[in-house]
Amino acid sequence: MGSWYLPGMMTKVRFTVAYDGTGFCGWQKQKQEDQISVAHVIEGALEKVFAEKITLFASGRTDAGVHALNQVCHFSTHRKIDPAKKWDLCWALNAHLPPSIVVKKAWIAPEDFHATLSATHKTYRYLILNRPRPSAHLNRYAEWVRMPIDITHLQESSKILLGNHDFKSFQSVGTPVKDTVREIYQADWEWRRPEVLQFTVTGNGFLKQMVRNIVGTSLMLERKGQKPSKIKEIIEAQDRRQAGPPAPAQGLYLMRVYYPQDLDNRCIEL
Amino acid sequence: MGSWYLPGMMTKVRFTVAYDGTGFCGWQKQKQEDQISVAHVIEGALEKVFAEKITLFASGRTDAGVHALNQVCHFSTHRKIDPAKKWDLCWALNAHLPPSIVVKKAWIAPEDFHATLSATHKTYRYLILNRPRPSAHLNRYAEWVRMPIDITHLQESSKILLGNHDFKSFQSVGTPVKDTVREIYQADWEWRRPEVLQFTVTGNGFLKQMVRNIVGTSLMLERKGQKPSKIKEIIEAQDRRQAGPPAPAQGLYLMRVYYPQDLDNRCIEL
Repeated sequence: MGSWYLPGMMTKVRFTVAYDGTGFCGWQKQKQEDQISVAHVIEGALEKVFAEKITLFASGRTDAGVHALNQVCHFSTHRKIDPAKKWDLCWALNAHLPPSIVVKKAWIAPEDFHATLSATHKTYRYLILNRPRPSAHLNRYAEWVRMPIDITHLQESSKILLGNHDFKSFQSVGTPVKDTVREIYQADWEWRRPEVLQFTVTGNGFLKQMVRNIVGTSLMLERKGQKPSKIKEIIEAQDRRQAGPPAPAQGLYLMRVYYPQDLDNRCIEL
Repeated sequence: MGSWYLPGMMTKVRFTVAYDGTGFCGWQKQKQEDQISVAHVIEGALEKVFAEKITLFASGRTDAGVHALNQVCHFSTHRKIDPAKKWDLCWALNAHLPPSIVVKKAWIAPEDFHATLSATHKTYRYLILNRPRPSAHLNRYAEWVRMPIDITHLQESSKILLGNHDFKSFQSVGTPVKDTVREIYQADWEWRRPEVLQFTVTGNGFLKQMVRNIVGTSLMLERKGQKPSKIKEIIEAQDRRQAGPPAPAQGLYLMRVYYPQDLDNRCIEL
């Protein structure tokens, strides 16, 4: 391994990873020592492949039980990686990862790329199984709602979320941030297939449990027969207690993280 | 509960159940005492609801890790069930079952109905994820095959299985049966969606691991570049060693069990 070790020089590596959040305590390690985080498992695999201590950065944290299809991460290594050698880093990493975590693509990233700080916006998806009986196979991957849902109601309330708003009412306690204004670019409800509803939301950032609180609140308004426009009052109240409970974690997926085109262009695929 | 107990009289109940086979030792209890069977868990739920010892019969056993969308079962109870009362037996049972087992529909069955003995044929499905990278979310629900699969090859070999054949070459060791002749009515490969292949097979009965052995053998012939017609030689050899290894359990689903129309007609939906 000595020949590919360059003292002082660091290579930055960017990669996308999918994970089944079931059974993990979330992306980041929690206080309880008996729970395993996704980041901890990936760092372990990276340290086996690179034979050095690795610190992993992600676009953001996901809660316990939340899934990702394309979480974006970066780390720096002293090892030299030659893209021309077509070394399959993903393959090497996946060999050390459990089947519930899959590294999909990797790049050499420019020095100024940072998975957390460079991210400009993110897309999340929420899945709901809407039928009289639950599913034995979807219970880890969607929320089950027994009573028929009126999708037009959800569509109407979601349209009110578009644009710049102070989403303080939709921020769960935990790590409160000072600036709770976020911009939502897209918020769509549609039938993915019969009995499966999907909510897709894109924004420049999301507060703690914001997507789950939006879904939980929208479903609460629909179920209680309240007007979709009621969500405007809830936003304006800037009071967490006005909104509904968070929808369960297992329905949520981090779908995509966006970075400036200029940074993407300077990444070299491995 | 006394009022709905009829000494000497038994009511036969038929129901369909879906289960995620992951984590179970299969339908039936195995010798190892530390493993939990699907049947054991359902019997436990039935005994809670009916407050008596229940013996459960199913259309057949499924192996560890194999899924079912519509396994058919029956049991007899001393309790009186009045279909007019619209008692939701499924709801009551599901309240005592883990989310990985869901009772879907229930009927009062005629005395001559038997989940195992009355079954005339069954449909199984096998799912394959065929793409360069595995899936974090499908690893419990499909086999992952990395190299591109030529579906026309699989279609050709599967057509040779149609009709009456001695499938001894496709019977795994364990509980050998004397008569290894089975009739296959349908054997179709198709793209379920891009990257996901599905094999659907219907027959009047299946030997131990027969579907998985058929899938494993078909894939082996395709991968090795052997002729699809080679499967005919393997059938004729009546020798397990001629066939390929069984495809992994997690791709297999028991889709449907068929009973004589006359018996179906005399079932009363609950």
